[in-house]
Amino acid sequence: MPFRNFTSQARKIVAIGRNYAEHAKELGNEVPKAPFFFLKPTSSFVTEPNAIEVPKGAVVHHEVELGLIIGKDGRDIPATQADSYIAGYFLALDMTARNLQDEAKKKGLPWSVAKGFDTFTPVGKFIEKSAIPNPDAFRLWLKIDGKSVQDGPTSDMMFKIPQLIEHVSSVMKLEKGDVILTGTPSGVGPVQPGQTLTGGIRPLNSSNDISTFSFP
Amino acid sequence: MPFRNFTSQARKIVAIGRNYAEHAKELGNEVPKAPFFFLKPTSSFVTEPNAIEVPKGAVVHHEVELGLIIGKDGRDIPATQADSYIAGYFLALDMTARNLQDEAKKKGLPWSVAKGFDTFTPVGKFIEKSAIPNPDAFRLWLKIDGKSVQDGPTSDMMFKIPQLIEHVSSVMKLEKGDVILTGTPSGVGPVQPGQTLTGGIRPLNSSNDISTFSFP
Ligand SMILES: [Mg+2]
Ligand SMILES: [Mg+2]
Ligand SMILES: [Mg+2]
Repeated sequence: MPFRNFTSQARKIVAIGRNYAEHAKELGNEVPKAPFFFLKPTSSFVTEPNAIEVPKGAVVHHEVELGLIIGKDGRDIPATQADSYIAGYFLALDMTARNLQDEAKKKGLPWSVAKGFDTFTPVGKFIEKSAIPNPDAFRLWLKIDGKSVQDGPTSDMMFKIPQLIEHVSSVMKLEKGDVILTGTPSGVGPVQPGQTLTGGIRPLNSSNDISTFSFP
Repeated sequence: MPFRNFTSQARKIVAIGRNYAEHAKELGNEVPKAPFFFLKPTSSFVTEPNAIEVPKGAVVHHEVELGLIIGKDGRDIPATQADSYIAGYFLALDMTARNLQDEAKKKGLPWSVAKGFDTFTPVGKFIEKSAIPNPDAFRLWLKIDGKSVQDGPTSDMMFKIPQLIEHVSSVMKLEKGDVILTGTPSGVGPVQPGQTLTGGIRPLNSSNDISTFSFP
């Protein structure tokens, strides 16, 4: 597993916005006509058993997402070849200071702070590519202190993973170890300090998770 | 010179926006009351003798800037201790697809694409820290095909480098090798394919550059 330590290898985290229609709508955003993305700093990765931090004054939302790891360098990758650039997957949270993001959006300012605090990209373990033969046929779920908050099928992604890789690599080359977060299903909401977030990913037709994580 | 290859070591590029009042005004922006920043992907670095690319449909502006390299990990670094975190400097261009940035600002979307294309962070060679004992007392200049377009003193920075390091590290930890671009003086404008950009940095009281670069 050459990507077991992907959090120390990635040189960029590309995160896709509003890739599930229901999530775009729940925040009052338009459903995008083309994929769009933003960057998170790799310094925001956090792994178990460490904790997610809620910065003072921030209203921090959870967004459970499927992450993928790029296995080789590429630029202008056609969707038809995208699969060969995927080295594996992981379960992720795209933590977001929603109040700071709302303010940035109003002022036309970057999202980097709202998305970039330390511990704002909690991730699970490396998932072998063979464990996700069809990334369209899984459920992502998240619970706060045992109560379900997000539970959605990856088949609801408006822009599929090959299109995402094509789009991102048309702007910036993707390098071995880079990761892409593919967007979150609906159900996002605030996290309070002291709460525990538990998440998982499982095939649509199964009740067995292939990966889970739990973050205090 | 452990940072001679800083472009392959950096895990993040943090770029400060509107740090020179005249530049903020020339684009019709308010002069900010606190520093703000965005992230550029490290895949956007380009070094001599390679060329800057102008993506199709993009109006690409030059922004000549002083870059600094972080020499050790730090978080919540007080301005009074910031200097000890600086390992050296470099001359940089923060290339910007202005039309895409304007569109992103209007729509409240991230700046990542407008700032993140391949070759959008041209940089010169590593500058020893000892060559810039006072980063406040230098001039940054840029010419297009030999014609002066930007020429401004670093003393015009509204937020000084120690404050920038304090601010950025209050949001996200800075890691050894990370770089910060400190903002651009006025005079930004479009670059046409085929034009050559030549820039330099020199002490205020001297006509000898301590570093220069030239990019086709
Ligand atoms: Mg997200
Ligand atoms: Mg951004
Ligand atoms: Mg700039």
